[in-house]
Amino acid sequence: MSEFSLIRDYFSRHALEGDEMGVGDDCAIITPPDHKQLVICTDTLVAGRHFVHETDAHAIGYKVVAVNLSDLSAMGAAPCGILLALSLPKHLNDKNWLKKFSQGIYDCCAPYGVKLVGGDTTQSDTLTINITAYGFIKKSSAIRRDGAKVGDVICVSGEIGTASFALHQILDDLYGDGHANSPTALDELPDDLRTALQYPTPQVELGQALLGYAHAMIDLSDGLVQDLGHILTSSNVAALLYLDDIPTHSVLQRLDFRQAMDFVLSGGDDYQLCCCLPQKSLTEFRRTHPEFALHKIGEVVAPTQTQRLRYYRNNRPFFGINPKGFDHFD
Amino acid sequence: MSEFSLIRDYFSRHALEGDEMGVGDDCAIITPPDHKQLVICTDTLVAGRHFVHETDAHAIGYKVVAVNLSDLSAMGAAPCGILLALSLPKHLNDKNWLKKFSQGIYDCCAPYGVKLVGGDTTQSDTLTINITAYGFIKKSSAIRRDGAKVGDVICVSGEIGTASFALHQILDDLYGDGHANSPTALDELPDDLRTALQYPTPQVELGQALLGYAHAMIDLSDGLVQDLGHILTSSNVAALLYLDDIPTHSVLQRLDFRQAMDFVLSGGDDYQLCCCLPQKSLTEFRRTHPEFALHKIGEVVAPTQTQRLRYYRNNRPFFGINPKGFDHFD
Repeated sequence: MSEFSLIRDYFSRHALEGDEMGVGDDCAIITPPDHKQLVICTDTLVAGRHFVHETDAHAIGYKVVAVNLSDLSAMGAAPCGILLALSLPKHLNDKNWLKKFSQGIYDCCAPYGVKLVGGDTTQSDTLTINITAYGFIKKSSAIRRDGAKVGDVICVSGEIGTASFALHQILDDLYGDGHANSPTALDELPDDLRTALQYPTPQVELGQALLGYAHAMIDLSDGLVQDLGHILTSSNVAALLYLDDIPTHSVLQRLDFRQAMDFVLSGGDDYQLCCCLPQKSLTEFRRTHPEFALHKIGEVVAPTQTQRLRYYRNNRPFFGINPKGFDHFD
Repeated sequence: MSEFSLIRDYFSRHALEGDEMGVGDDCAIITPPDHKQLVICTDTLVAGRHFVHETDAHAIGYKVVAVNLSDLSAMGAAPCGILLALSLPKHLNDKNWLKKFSQGIYDCCAPYGVKLVGGDTTQSDTLTINITAYGFIKKSSAIRRDGAKVGDVICVSGEIGTASFALHQILDDLYGDGHANSPTALDELPDDLRTALQYPTPQVELGQALLGYAHAMIDLSDGLVQDLGHILTSSNVAALLYLDDIPTHSVLQRLDFRQAMDFVLSGGDDYQLCCCLPQKSLTEFRRTHPEFALHKIGEVVAPTQTQRLRYYRNNRPFFGINPKGFDHFD
């Protein structure tokens, strides 16, 4: 299939109106809303690294959009559109794969009114999918990583560690050859674990709702310790984490505690939001936004010479864990 | 090198100011100028497909920016910023390669004041570089593909076919294995041919200067026949091409005419602009913008049942060429 028929047949569903323009010219043309800033990010998924080769095309399409909308949500931005750069191996250039893949993209866009406005397709030996997502936000209101203040509480929006636990179940050797440990491993996962791994929900509404409440925010893609670490270093603060208070899936609660914490602290791929805000703002937010869950998991403290992060369990300091990602902190 | 130190060391040179933000958070934040539209595009280069593996890292970095700025220029937009999504094989994750590659990116950005505002790096077996470029343009003024009118003249901004001729010199079998026909083949190319292939100049100023003059415009990335074909089908018109009037490098003028036309009509990778405008606008443009060259190579005519493109040589219809890309026309 040529690049042109491929784009026409699978990626031209969203029309823009008036003097805006989507797929079909050198560039897309978008009219920014008045008095708003453009928020923009890009994220790539590579077959065998970010998902096992056995992954269904629909799930791949869905997730590559979700991880980008998650980045926009972490600033508090309203997502508007995406561009798709698809590098496709010859054997996947077939109607069945493209139909499912494009449907996955549109299915993740639809609930948020996001439009696929442009892109590029090319051949490659390695399936590589890049999405650039953009949205808009009121001027000077974006929630950055560098705003956490001593005394803030640290919250997450949902269960942490489930996606990496699910991934662990289907891999013998973590992404050794990029294949699952059996052709049916993904299908054999319980539904909720498979959904956590393949169909993460970007926290689009919550991210925007936290505008005016959160001092700092990030989405949890690389693991809680690493991602929270970015907030701590950017804001030049430290944190206490209450390990018992981190919400987890029941399957993790049945594991040895240290093993569970490995998934929770270092796992990644959860796409929950992690934010820092004053306790009184959290109380107010919970009152005015009862539709959202925010779980308090720690607090922001003054930085010390020794550690950015200290762990507590049962109200006592907890030692003997050294989560991956800690190296990146300083 | 970790993703974080890689980004910090090589891709964090451009700082944004005030409430704008570049590299270092989940997203970049940009303030659109008042009363302008956002113009945005994405383009990927894959090693062994879009450039031979022997290509110098600096040239790769330069070209991936240039091809994207070329797309913005083809709308008449002023480029502002880029996001880089880099999928890097392990053996290229070294200081020497990254230093040259990032310098190539910055060197193509600098003349146009373009800033690298964000991105993503990941590991991959295949070197894949994606750039998303954005710029701004006065509302409703972008030069699209679908505006060509019967009676317009067709112009190009410079020599056509040079890049594909240069590529032909360094390949035995067109991108058979993605390698040049000798390790020194690129170095042995005459300077002007190597520059045409590796360092195309995006027509940034010309694209903006043509606002208000050109009815339709495209940049020549896939070959003159294919790219002009997009204008013709989008605008529902046909064209006559005066083959003798297409500007070419002297090395092509020494070839057999039909062989030369193969590079000129089907070659691609030239990144000149091709535009359609009334003769009187061309005359006026040449008077007011003597700093730019526009070469008239044909005219727009009413569509017929049979052909979108007819060729003339020495003022006579010229048959017997069937350039690649023609299949994509209808």
